[in-house]
Amino acid sequence: MSLQRVEEIGEFGLISKIREFLSAYPSDWVSLSLGDDAACISPKPDYEIVITCDSAVEKRHFLLSHLTLKEVGRRAMVQNISDIGAMGGIPFGALICLCLPEGFSVEGVMEIYKGLMSELMPFGATIMGGNITKAQSLELHITLLGYVEKGKAVTRKGAKPGDWVLVTGFPGQSFLGLSLLKRGSDEFPKLIDAYKNPRHRVFEARALMEKGIASAMIDISDGLFSDLNHICEESKVGAVIELEQLPKGPQVLEASNKLNLNVDQVILGPSDDYELIFTCHKRHISKAEGLFKHLGVPLSRVGYIKEGSGIEILHFGKKVKLEAMGWDHFISSQRQG
Amino acid sequence: MSLQRVEEIGEFGLISKIREFLSAYPSDWVSLSLGDDAACISPKPDYEIVITCDSAVEKRHFLLSHLTLKEVGRRAMVQNISDIGAMGGIPFGALICLCLPEGFSVEGVMEIYKGLMSELMPFGATIMGGNITKAQSLELHITLLGYVEKGKAVTRKGAKPGDWVLVTGFPGQSFLGLSLLKRGSDEFPKLIDAYKNPRHRVFEARALMEKGIASAMIDISDGLFSDLNHICEESKVGAVIELEQLPKGPQVLEASNKLNLNVDQVILGPSDDYELIFTCHKRHISKAEGLFKHLGVPLSRVGYIKEGSGIEILHFGKKVKLEAMGWDHFISSQRQG
Repeated sequence: MSLQRVEEIGEFGLISKIREFLSAYPSDWVSLSLGDDAACISPKPDYEIVITCDSAVEKRHFLLSHLTLKEVGRRAMVQNISDIGAMGGIPFGALICLCLPEGFSVEGVMEIYKGLMSELMPFGATIMGGNITKAQSLELHITLLGYVEKGKAVTRKGAKPGDWVLVTGFPGQSFLGLSLLKRGSDEFPKLIDAYKNPRHRVFEARALMEKGIASAMIDISDGLFSDLNHICEESKVGAVIELEQLPKGPQVLEASNKLNLNVDQVILGPSDDYELIFTCHKRHISKAEGLFKHLGVPLSRVGYIKEGSGIEILHFGKKVKLEAMGWDHFISSQRQG
Repeated sequence: MSLQRVEEIGEFGLISKIREFLSAYPSDWVSLSLGDDAACISPKPDYEIVITCDSAVEKRHFLLSHLTLKEVGRRAMVQNISDIGAMGGIPFGALICLCLPEGFSVEGVMEIYKGLMSELMPFGATIMGGNITKAQSLELHITLLGYVEKGKAVTRKGAKPGDWVLVTGFPGQSFLGLSLLKRGSDEFPKLIDAYKNPRHRVFEARALMEKGIASAMIDISDGLFSDLNHICEESKVGAVIELEQLPKGPQVLEASNKLNLNVDQVILGPSDDYELIFTCHKRHISKAEGLFKHLGVPLSRVGYIKEGSGIEILHFGKKVKLEAMGWDHFISSQRQG
């Protein structure tokens, strides 16, 4: 089957195909969607709007040898949904700045949009605008909007000394999955799946917000260590991480050993798992644990908040020095180029 | 003076510099700005939110040999402001996905942000979020939000047979300015300035919306012909353009001749002037003319809406065929690569 190049139908032809596809997905927050200079949103009383943006650039954030185009779309959208979720919000609409290299196929674009919509659909959310342009590589720049009850957004600012630091799921899986893909290995399919099909924690975050459990919350996109550091900076506090408490997901230790990696660094470092870190006053701990037991999602206490600044790492009470961790797009070169 | 590379201070160092710069520019629509997973917007009752996005990619949409970094920022923001304006809206907040090539300087980034803010400041608007990543060239992907009174947004849909088609200012100037720059000419400084420092028509569009003059409205970003065609498609009508009525700005005819270009094609074709096209019932014409006289902005009737579809071009009543006009990012290659 021969594919149709975008050049054959042009920008406007492509937009009309995308528009037709998206017409099946209205949102009651969006009063005017594609087809005008701008989209219109009808805010509802008693809600604030939360808004975030994130980029997925080929060769920088992903390789097309590792992912299908639908997975590229899904991953990029999950990344943004996770940020809306970490505020306690629910997504309702996205805008996509899509950059396509020469010769990209129309079918490929539609696969990306299917991936994007497959993540928005469960929320009744839609894509309400965008822009398409040529560039040197495939790039998705997504802006995502969501809603949250007025004054209820959970920020990074509320952590207090004495609060526990809790983390959902098993961070590190996605990083290991990617490392395995790079080596061409298919030995740990669960880890590879964690990279290819990451999940957000919107519903878990929402429950935490509604029950008033989290004093501060963030999603892990830069890495557990680095993102906990963001909470510390915004809350003007310090934190302690207890290495022996780090949750080791199935196959994480085994794969780390196989790849000759320090398992603690894998869990604390950059990994696209989109899990949540939140801080919690001691009086809410049992409520938090009960909630996550009910949700069937692993929850681990990995440390606590203290006065001061910075993060101290302890191993059974003894100070440990680990290499600087976290993902900086300009300094680090840990992820694929 | 030696410049500091972004790599020296890293992504987080750069973000903290940008955040410090932006802290001087609050907006009363934005309740939580940079420094969290997402920004928060507090919508006001009786308003809708209008939202648009647009990309400016080096070598595709601009060349750094033609523009300073501040101008790159200003132009990219004007492009988005123009879209909000064409709905009758006022901007209040932007998100920036910034892509930087290897070795880009911190000072350069700050120049771009100064350019961006210089256009937002007059509206009391701010930059409330963003993302920075490395890429092969400089790219700005901007999402801009504005507000408009509930139900008052002027869309592309309302044009009716018999309506006049009116255009503001002198389209074509920016295209000529760019053509001159490409040739290294500095002969028509007004035209070159029109390219380097485009202006939006937010206040004019706003006045049209408030007085209920425009039945449909669009900003010219694809070209007069192509954008009028968008109005026709969305309104399900046709249109007639009368060539003899096209407004020829100062130096436009002279420069077109010098560059061996057909002046009508220059005016009807793609040109980044960000003027407005609107349609208007005959009973509002004198109100529209009075308004623009008062504003000191040129306004020209260039044709009228009719039943059917497509655009007919007439010259003193006789049908004329001009080459297909308009800017398609994938089919056309009229603008700089």
